[in-house]
Amino acid sequence: MKWAMVATWRMAFEGVEKASEILSVGGNSKDAIEESIKMVEDYPFYKSVGYGGLPNEHCEVELDGAFMDGDTLSFGAIGGIKDFKNPISIARKLSMERFNCFLVGKGAEEYAKQNGFEQRPMLTKRAETHYKIRKRDIEEKGLSPYDGHDTVGIIALDSLKSMTVGTSTSGLFMKKRGRVGDSPVSGSGFYVDSEVGGATATGLGEDIMKGCLSYEIVRLMAEGLSPQKAADKALNEFIRRIKAKGSKIGEISIVALNNQGEFGVATNIKNFSFVYSSEKHKTTVYVCENHEGETTYEEASEEWLEAYSKRIKEELFFD
Amino acid sequence: MKWAMVATWRMAFEGVEKASEILSVGGNSKDAIEESIKMVEDYPFYKSVGYGGLPNEHCEVELDGAFMDGDTLSFGAIGGIKDFKNPISIARKLSMERFNCFLVGKGAEEYAKQNGFEQRPMLTKRAETHYKIRKRDIEEKGLSPYDGHDTVGIIALDSLKSMTVGTSTSGLFMKKRGRVGDSPVSGSGFYVDSEVGGATATGLGEDIMKGCLSYEIVRLMAEGLSPQKAADKALNEFIRRIKAKGSKIGEISIVALNNQGEFGVATNIKNFSFVYSSEKHKTTVYVCENHEGETTYEEASEEWLEAYSKRIKEELFFD
Repeated sequence: MKWAMVATWRMAFEGVEKASEILSVGGNSKDAIEESIKMVEDYPFYKSVGYGGLPNEHCEVELDGAFMDGDTLSFGAIGGIKDFKNPISIARKLSMERFNCFLVGKGAEEYAKQNGFEQRPMLTKRAETHYKIRKRDIEEKGLSPYDGHDTVGIIALDSLKSMTVGTSTSGLFMKKRGRVGDSPVSGSGFYVDSEVGGATATGLGEDIMKGCLSYEIVRLMAEGLSPQKAADKALNEFIRRIKAKGSKIGEISIVALNNQGEFGVATNIKNFSFVYSSEKHKTTVYVCENHEGETTYEEASEEWLEAYSKRIKEELFFD
Repeated sequence: MKWAMVATWRMAFEGVEKASEILSVGGNSKDAIEESIKMVEDYPFYKSVGYGGLPNEHCEVELDGAFMDGDTLSFGAIGGIKDFKNPISIARKLSMERFNCFLVGKGAEEYAKQNGFEQRPMLTKRAETHYKIRKRDIEEKGLSPYDGHDTVGIIALDSLKSMTVGTSTSGLFMKKRGRVGDSPVSGSGFYVDSEVGGATATGLGEDIMKGCLSYEIVRLMAEGLSPQKAADKALNEFIRRIKAKGSKIGEISIVALNNQGEFGVATNIKNFSFVYSSEKHKTTVYVCENHEGETTYEEASEEWLEAYSKRIKEELFFD
């Protein structure tokens, strides 16, 4: 297999489709990751990433992201950055820094500005309406504010056997100002080694960081496990440990790709979707189920895909 | 062995000594970690942690830290916080939050203020002088600005078999504003599981985060390795991987403690010091050497200890 990509969530579809074109003509995995994630960041109806992402408790969109180069293990990461159009591009640039590769808040914004990255107000009217509705629901119905934290994470393998992983997210909806999740945290939200493979996670970052799940999956692949077995094993073992301690566990889903272009997926939720594409395999959306610790998946049906498109664009009302 | 503590660097000595008294009368590992690290934070002559810590490129002291509870795997972490007296206490409080447990910058400061943590200007005259000297040396001698990033990391085991780890640092001297190192990053700067043991790292965070070294050491201890073998193996294997990729590697030192109270240490530098204390072992400073991938250590001599005390207090001149 010459090249392959795997990505969290249906929202990655258009980006993976576009990046497949880059990879299919011999382009590199770094460009594939940046271009694919930029498309997700730019699309206003994906409400957990980039433009249109859901805001924090002060109605500010604070973004996290990372970019890791599997050839060198170098990575760049940003946390809590406001009003820059493409966090993934800033993270890519940071991955080339020997020092200061993980920047947060104001410092991350200064770096982005100095390096000429495009600024843009990232809060949309629609995201603001989501915020108002949620705020009312919290106050009137006592709902938990913390829901909706879907990170786009994509791993790419190119024809020169180089691998790259990237993540981008607006993080936990209604999060506290300055909250950082797993997405910019090496080993938790992402990890890749071109000699082995990569993994990337989505879900409740607070829990994902307790298990260093992306690192663990790559490590299991290095031991010889298939991406599927590595993903299931890492997640199951982590859930066992957490439960043995009497702790709760949040939503966690992970995708993995080895350096042969084979993928794996594990989730503890219903309806986790992901996207896979390779030289031999057209870009496809899959939907997962977990049966007693084994994750299975099937191609998303026309109905599922239509319902998704409808849902992300449905009109929002707030009086 | 009823209780034990291990800590990075000579600077932890007084804190470990004090916390040993807590543990020896049946106190818990959480209090031991908070109290010991607070002592390091409060002492003005330890120039890489808390009050008196070295500033960033804008001459601001930005602090990172974390606190992890090995009974639950819950942790709290802060990055780039300014002018709060005890980052470790804020991290401990955050470790009790189900959501928003990793806060950075302004958001971390708001949380600390709301929760009544003591504010204090953290830049000392002495640290400012260090800054001026370094700035001049960079300009006149072309020295690399990035040096001096010694994190205090301490692991404690108490008589109820609970384990806790904490870290605190002012990070890389002359770092960019908002730079976050490994100290608040789970699995890299710290990790602990009371059923196994804990580990904590110091050195160039940018590199430590490429290897999830604290997680890896705990994992190796869970496989049955002694803390010493786990620490050496994790560091050696990481160095091998980095070198195979043709990348440079910065300074890295790690200490580990298992749930039997046995410790281990690994370093790729000369003169890394650490502190160990247990029910059967008075608080002692050791100094390490690394011979071909095997870390050895001996008790710090009187001369070494005296030279250290003199060095940290020597008069600084800047005209």
